[in-house]
Amino acid sequence: MAAVKACNILITGANRGLGLETVKQLLENSCQKHIFATCRDPDGPKSEALRELARKHPRVITIIRLDVDDPCSIKESAKKVGSLLGNNGLNLLVNNAGIVARGTIHTSRVEDMKNTFNTNVIGPLLIIREYLPYLQTAAKASGTPGMSCNKAAVINISSVAGSMTRKPSNHIQSPVLPYSMSKAGFNMLTVLAAEELKADEILCMALHPGWVKTELGGEKAPLEPKESVEGMLRVIGSLTEKQHGGFLDYTGETIPW
Amino acid sequence: MAAVKACNILITGANRGLGLETVKQLLENSCQKHIFATCRDPDGPKSEALRELARKHPRVITIIRLDVDDPCSIKESAKKVGSLLGNNGLNLLVNNAGIVARGTIHTSRVEDMKNTFNTNVIGPLLIIREYLPYLQTAAKASGTPGMSCNKAAVINISSVAGSMTRKPSNHIQSPVLPYSMSKAGFNMLTVLAAEELKADEILCMALHPGWVKTELGGEKAPLEPKESVEGMLRVIGSLTEKQHGGFLDYTGETIPW
Repeated sequence: MAAVKACNILITGANRGLGLETVKQLLENSCQKHIFATCRDPDGPKSEALRELARKHPRVITIIRLDVDDPCSIKESAKKVGSLLGNNGLNLLVNNAGIVARGTIHTSRVEDMKNTFNTNVIGPLLIIREYLPYLQTAAKASGTPGMSCNKAAVINISSVAGSMTRKPSNHIQSPVLPYSMSKAGFNMLTVLAAEELKADEILCMALHPGWVKTELGGEKAPLEPKESVEGMLRVIGSLTEKQHGGFLDYTGETIPW
Repeated sequence: MAAVKACNILITGANRGLGLETVKQLLENSCQKHIFATCRDPDGPKSEALRELARKHPRVITIIRLDVDDPCSIKESAKKVGSLLGNNGLNLLVNNAGIVARGTIHTSRVEDMKNTFNTNVIGPLLIIREYLPYLQTAAKASGTPGMSCNKAAVINISSVAGSMTRKPSNHIQSPVLPYSMSKAGFNMLTVLAAEELKADEILCMALHPGWVKTELGGEKAPLEPKESVEGMLRVIGSLTEKQHGGFLDYTGETIPW
C-alpha cells in the first residue's frame, strides 16, 4: 500500500477533527518524520488532545500557532517553522483548516460569506506563499524527477460542496451556499497554484475527505474520521504528477469541477 | 434570430463597457420595454454617456443608483425599482457589474481578493435576493410554461477566467488569481441560485462575454464591445430551461466548469 513517507509535514487545523486524526495516523507509520501541527490557539481548551499527543511524541510533533485568518500569524508561523527546519525542506503541506457556514440565497449572512472566504481561500493562499521556499528546498533536495508527496506537495482539503457539477443535487436539502462558494474559490486556487508550482515539481491538488462525523460535518455524517483519514493518506501516498492540479475524494475517485 | 423581448430589464454597471453597450443595443430593438440602468454614481463623470442616452430615451431608460459593494444601496435600489414597477414584474436581471484584479500566489493582495469577492460574488447574491419578488411576479404573470429571458431570468456575466478547466492554460501569461477565484465563486452562486429559482421557473445561468476591449478587458483584447454584446443578446434571447444553471460564452458555446 502507498504510504506517506514524507519527512517534514505541516498540517493546519491539527487540534481537532480530521486534522487531529491525520496527525494520529501519521504517527502510526514507522517512517522517521517530523510533524508541524498548527492550530489557532495551542494553549486553549480545544487543543488539549493535540497537546496530549505532543507530550507523548515530543520528538515527532511540534505544535505551532497559526491563525489562518491572520496574515501576520501565518508569517510568524513560517519564520518559526523555517528556523526549526534549518537547511531541511518541507515535504508536505496540508491545508486542512476550514470553516463551514450554511445558508441559501435568502438566509446567507454577509459576515459568513466574508469569513468563509477569508478562512477557506485567502488563508490557504497566504500559507502556500509563505511556506513555498521550504517546499522548494525539499523539491530540490529530493534528487528524484517527477512529483510525489514524499518529495514536495501541497494538499488542499476541499469539499464536494465546491463542485459545480455535484453540489446542486443536494443544495435544497443541505444549503451551505457560503461554504460552497468558498470551496469553489479554493478549487480555483488549487488549479492555478498547481500551474505556478509545476516548474519546481511541487505537487498540488484538492482532496475531498467525504462527509465525516466531525464538529464541521455534524452527527448525521456517515463516515468516521478514522476511515476518511485512512483513505486520504492512502490517496496522498499514491499521488504522482498525473494528479497534479486534480480533485479527488478519499477513495481516490476523481470529482468533476 | 432570437431577440430579447423582455419588458422590464435591469442591468448593473450600466454606465460603461459592456453594460452601456447592452443598454444601447436593447434600445435598437423595437419591442416596448423599460430598462433600469444601474450604476454606482449616476451623477459622476463616468456616467455621462449613460445620462446622455437616458436624456434621448426618457421613457425607456431609468437610471438607478446601485453600489454593488453596499448592501444598503442594493436594498434602496430594489425599493425604488419596486415602486416604479408597481404591479408589473421584472423579466430580466443582468448581473453585469464586476471588477478585475490581477495577481499570482506571490503578488495577489489581500485587499484585492476581498474586494473582488465582495463585488463579484456577495453583491450579485444580495441583488438576486432583493429583486427576487419582482422576478417571481413576472414569472407568475407570464402564463406560459418553461423558462425564457422574456418570462423571468437572471443572467450572471461571469468569465472563462472562472473556469477550473480553461483558466490554468493561460494563468502564467495572464495571472488574475483574485478575479478567477471570485468568478469561480460566482459560478457556484449561479448553479445554486438556479436550484432555488427552479420552482418559480426563473431561468438562471452564467455567461462569458469573451475577452473584450473595455476598461476591464484592456487594449489587447481581440473583441469589440459591439460584437460581444450582439452575441450575448442573441444567446440570452434564445435561452430555454435547457440552459438553466449552465455556463455559455457569447457565441453560445458551453464552457466547462
